Amino acid sequence: MAKELYFEDFYVGQKFASLGGVKVTAEEIKEFGSKYDPQPFHLDEAAGENSFFKGLAASGWLTAAIVMRLRVQSLNVAGGMIGAGVEEMRWTLPVRPGDSIHTEIEVVGVRQSQSRKEFGIVRTRTLAYNQHNEVVMRSTVNFLAPLRSAVK
Amino acid sequence: MAKELYFEDFYVGQKFASLGGVKVTAEEIKEFGSKYDPQPFHLDEAAGENSFFKGLAASGWLTAAIVMRLRVQSLNVAGGMIGAGVEEMRWTLPVRPGDSIHTEIEVVGVRQSQSRKEFGIVRTRTLAYNQHNEVVMRSTVNFLAPLRSAVK
Repeated sequence: MAKELYFEDFYVGQKFASLGGVKVTAEEIKEFGSKYDPQPFHLDEAAGENSFFKGLAASGWLTAAIVMRLRVQSLNVAGGMIGAGVEEMRWTLPVRPGDSIHTEIEVVGVRQSQSRKEFGIVRTRTLAYNQHNEVVMRSTVNFLAPLRSAVK
Repeated sequence: MAKELYFEDFYVGQKFASLGGVKVTAEEIKEFGSKYDPQPFHLDEAAGENSFFKGLAASGWLTAAIVMRLRVQSLNVAGGMIGAGVEEMRWTLPVRPGDSIHTEIEVVGVRQSQSRKEFGIVRTRTLAYNQHNEVVMRSTVNFLAPLRSAVK
């Protein structure tokens, strides 16, 4: 587990790489698709062939969920990573069965919260890559981090 | 299933309500949490009590996934709803075990794609509500819709 971080530990330009890659399987694509994004190209290879994606592809929301897991593993915020909103999220390439996803997070902003005095807001840009180091998703996400001075 | 829609069928101000509510269970919160967002407040009631959320709460990415399912059910785009990016997503209230989520989608923009001549881009604002009609999540999401004139 990465070192526990408070707001004071974050600075612009700081980077966090995921500890490893996450392999995406056809089974997981179909299971997630059937639960949360039941469209033919997320459920079935043959239906995918006749679609925009020209094959089975992961739901963008599965990719986002996998990226969240990688974020949680590589960046250990004291008290947990509490989402303070997504500013942008783009899916730039399909994620296919067998792809392995890894992430790089960069801190692009830090500011104290006006509404919650004991927290700061950390703005992060995350790039998710496949095994060919092609960007499959990018996002700008804010999360809360507690002030060390407020909890100790 | 809702009527299949092409780009020409969308207009600003158009609304799509989800067909019903989706009940969120503690089991689903924990299962999704353990797979994609393994933080104490998404995994365990007792750990949740001692956290920011003061109880077990759904991962925001589970809420986003449930909202996607509701979007797919209420809005049937010809060829499927191909995400063209999230402009904004905010989690405004925790989603708890037993909550029932429903959505309202409003079309807030329509324009032809510059890069893909056979598609238009539909910009939508989605509000997700709990059973008390409190907004738990809001988002602005773009998706592609094929031009009827291009495929027929």
